[in-house]
Amino acid sequence: MSLGENNLVEGNKAYAASFTQGDLALPPSHHYTGLTCMDARIDPAAAFNIPLGAAHVIRNAGASARDAFRSLVISQQLLGTTEVLLVKHTGCGMLTFDNETARGLVKKNKGEAAAKEVEGLDFLAFPDLEEKVREDVEWLKSRAVEEGIRVTGWVYEVETGKVRRVV
Amino acid sequence: MSLGENNLVEGNKAYAASFTQGDLALPPSHHYTGLTCMDARIDPAAAFNIPLGAAHVIRNAGASARDAFRSLVISQQLLGTTEVLLVKHTGCGMLTFDNETARGLVKKNKGEAAAKEVEGLDFLAFPDLEEKVREDVEWLKSRAVEEGIRVTGWVYEVETGKVRRVV
Repeated sequence: MSLGENNLVEGNKAYAASFTQGDLALPPSHHYTGLTCMDARIDPAAAFNIPLGAAHVIRNAGASARDAFRSLVISQQLLGTTEVLLVKHTGCGMLTFDNETARGLVKKNKGEAAAKEVEGLDFLAFPDLEEKVREDVEWLKSRAVEEGIRVTGWVYEVETGKVRRVV
Repeated sequence: MSLGENNLVEGNKAYAASFTQGDLALPPSHHYTGLTCMDARIDPAAAFNIPLGAAHVIRNAGASARDAFRSLVISQQLLGTTEVLLVKHTGCGMLTFDNETARGLVKKNKGEAAAKEVEGLDFLAFPDLEEKVREDVEWLKSRAVEEGIRVTGWVYEVETGKVRRVV
């Protein structure tokens, strides 16, 4: 068994043994969505204080609003959420490369067939953290389907555990 | 202040006050990625036993492998993860609608301009849970860029807190 599988199987036994919230409803009880990065140093439930059942949590590389668009529309139109907290973070890997670097690495590590698979892929990296928070919030607000949805942008500091509002 | 913002601001104060893990490295220390649904009833860190800093966590509507592809490639090629735990769950909203229903709701609730924005969008809903776990795992395994990556598929039961392996 791999390390990940072992974490899951062993840890889940203890979690399930004391689990008491099996009757939570499908729609988020606090009617919002947290959108943040996949970064291993972020624990959204704990750091952003999200009670179980309260909010959808979407996570992808860089907390990209464009990448999350499908999930956000489902969250809002199918499950009634009306608010998005978009949280990017300091020390994000997405600040450290660009499409050319990423494609080059894939080709070098995995070969031509793999390189072909990511040829048209935009990795959505970005050079400036707070600017990208603002830009993502603006992009969401400019969608017709997001009309009436409250959208705010934040930065989480992986060094301090603190969150601060950008927009 | 909205409910979501209040959760974040008030809860984060307490979290940051006792935060002691500000020196974790960017690459996940356990070298794997958890891929699961945005569903509000899932707390991956707790239910899947993921220590802070150990693994990337990607979340989207339905735990879609295709939707997560960009993030997975970044996790693996840029940050050295070698394993994916794909976890879908019982009671998933994605089992309850299709593209036609979703597009119809957008048009009815938000109007023509919004309907146009989701016209070409595949919502990636699915009618059978375990079949979709298997299909997503197979799809990932068939990518050249995923060669050498260990991929397993699981179901989390929101009713019991238990996880079980599918493939």
